[in-house]
Amino acid sequence: MSVTAPKGFLASGAACGIKPSGAPDLAVVCTEDHHGVPAAAVFTANKARAAPVLVSRAHLEETGGHVAAVVCSSGNANAQTGREGMDAAERMCELVAVGIGCESRQVLVCQTGLIGVVFPVERVETGIPAVVGSLGSSAEHGSAAALAMLTTDTTNKEVVVDGGGFCVGGMAKGAAMLAPNMATMLAVLTTDAGCEPAVLDRVLRESVSATFNEMTVDGCCSTNDTVVLLANGTAGAVSEDELREAVSSACAHLAEAMVADAEGGTKVAMISVRGAASLSDARVAARQVATSLLVKCSLNGGDPYWGRVVSELGASGAAFDPDRVAVSYGGVTVCAGGVAVAHDPVAVSDHLGGSRVEIGCDLGLGVAEASMLTCDLGYGYIDENRTTS
Amino acid sequence: MSVTAPKGFLASGAACGIKPSGAPDLAVVCTEDHHGVPAAAVFTANKARAAPVLVSRAHLEETGGHVAAVVCSSGNANAQTGREGMDAAERMCELVAVGIGCESRQVLVCQTGLIGVVFPVERVETGIPAVVGSLGSSAEHGSAAALAMLTTDTTNKEVVVDGGGFCVGGMAKGAAMLAPNMATMLAVLTTDAGCEPAVLDRVLRESVSATFNEMTVDGCCSTNDTVVLLANGTAGAVSEDELREAVSSACAHLAEAMVADAEGGTKVAMISVRGAASLSDARVAARQVATSLLVKCSLNGGDPYWGRVVSELGASGAAFDPDRVAVSYGGVTVCAGGVAVAHDPVAVSDHLGGSRVEIGCDLGLGVAEASMLTCDLGYGYIDENRTTS
Repeated sequence: MSVTAPKGFLASGAACGIKPSGAPDLAVVCTEDHHGVPAAAVFTANKARAAPVLVSRAHLEETGGHVAAVVCSSGNANAQTGREGMDAAERMCELVAVGIGCESRQVLVCQTGLIGVVFPVERVETGIPAVVGSLGSSAEHGSAAALAMLTTDTTNKEVVVDGGGFCVGGMAKGAAMLAPNMATMLAVLTTDAGCEPAVLDRVLRESVSATFNEMTVDGCCSTNDTVVLLANGTAGAVSEDELREAVSSACAHLAEAMVADAEGGTKVAMISVRGAASLSDARVAARQVATSLLVKCSLNGGDPYWGRVVSELGASGAAFDPDRVAVSYGGVTVCAGGVAVAHDPVAVSDHLGGSRVEIGCDLGLGVAEASMLTCDLGYGYIDENRTTS
Repeated sequence: MSVTAPKGFLASGAACGIKPSGAPDLAVVCTEDHHGVPAAAVFTANKARAAPVLVSRAHLEETGGHVAAVVCSSGNANAQTGREGMDAAERMCELVAVGIGCESRQVLVCQTGLIGVVFPVERVETGIPAVVGSLGSSAEHGSAAALAMLTTDTTNKEVVVDGGGFCVGGMAKGAAMLAPNMATMLAVLTTDAGCEPAVLDRVLRESVSATFNEMTVDGCCSTNDTVVLLANGTAGAVSEDELREAVSSACAHLAEAMVADAEGGTKVAMISVRGAASLSDARVAARQVATSLLVKCSLNGGDPYWGRVVSELGASGAAFDPDRVAVSYGGVTVCAGGVAVAHDPVAVSDHLGGSRVEIGCDLGLGVAEASMLTCDLGYGYIDENRTTS
């Protein structure tokens, strides 16, 4: 149950031959009546933007934020593919538009997979009509769409949040090339809440900023990252606060699912920084610790080596006093006033042996705080990424 | 043959019990007549500066850049060790000063190893007198000192550069916690060239900037990084240009040796960026590619996945046009005008299978260029860093 949970949305997914493995690789999500509804999207901050990002952004601008369908494909990112790639992305939108009876510019396109490989557009010429022909509103239809977005993910990432009188559904993919401060993945969210495009845009940006942009797997920002939110209003108008709460909750769930399914990752770690002199200091410090190879290796080994955490805080650029810093694992303080302190080593080692680790850092300089979700670095990440074949 | 190659320097190294393994962990380098000579040093940009960094910087200021000896220890970084750590670092300088007959403030101290562990200063109370007692000017003495600086390094890192009438010798350690834009390691350089402290400082900063600061192993900046250069003038005065050339050459040799001996690394890669709109763009782009986990995994597998290189260039913040970028491996162009181009795949795969890889990136926007030395990411790095025990 995900994107089809809100009333008035259809979905479908299937294999059309983009992935050599024959796994599902094509999905469509659309409004039941095939009319455009208010929509918003956040795209990658990478300047090497893939064709689908360029096409979707242009379509959203042309329609003033009204979308009838989103088509997603996996296995080929259609990035760094030149004019041919742009034509292929536009063609995908046309095929959906013809299939459901809307305008091409009312369709957004999301693609994920290998960069720099010519997109086999001939596969979607028959694939998209087939997927459109099998659209439905059941939970199974939603899950089929969620499955077709995945690449190296090991599980579907779906969510439904009950907003009280309306609901938000979502699906996402992401296992690597995930980094904060950019729209860091591919996700499609739907809601039956009623909302103007401008409000939807604000709600989505704020939700992404507090969730997807506060997690990292490998610090790599993809060419294709896109988060889309469609609001068909079938449940009537809701307040901006209510909607933000529900959308943020859905995004937070998907973000945690992505970090938990990181390539080669065996545990999720929440890095919390408090006592920072400013919010930007808190954020930069949390990000530095969360992306540190040495910290991620320590997490993999369950090793309470807080010296690396302190070193990264000191290297982050944030205001820092080595004599004021404190570090805790799972609430057990191991460093205070900048030096090692007596603590229960068994409690720390038990905490670090679990699947969800909390590293608390107190800079002792102010009241600002920020946190970031990360994962450990294990053999699996290298295995997954050393070759593409 | 390293720090004892220039006339008038003595060195020695031994085990004093800081490392539980019993491996050599204490070294002293000093002038033969035990008088202070012009010296310069570059220290870590990390705000979590270790006690030896604080003590050495203060000593250098007090003497106006005149140093008689450098004492190095490995196995314990004496970082985040509070007042006790500062006292221990000062005590090391005192012990050397008493041993050779100079002032404490004429001694610098470099330490490397675990952060946050109380330094066992009692070990150097007997260790330093013993090392001072075995000082000598032979190549073996130089190598004994170089060996005693190492931590997870697998080989000594030593260099001698003939400047023509004078020479520069050097030794270094470094296998992880190496990142650019900071003084990124521990190194002691000696020269018999004659030079004022102010000139020496300029020569050293420029040399470090062009060598140690243009390499990375894991993007982690240590608490202890220090590069020291002593010039005793026994070979007479030399021009600043001559000295810069020789010191830069020595630093470049040590930097490449450090990347080649990176923890778990199997190959060295030179990332060259040209066609950038500005020098800072060229540097930030080269650094982004060099520190990318995905690029480093591709290097480990010898995989010519240029899409990741382009994605990192686009994510770097440098001015970037996805339709102008070109990428080559070992001079063989695989991407031009932003898209894949026909090339000899065997030549590329042969190049990537070697131990030294060249990745060329052309942004096609200007004339600025920069390069950075990096290494691949393999199981060995994780093995080395997942636990400290």
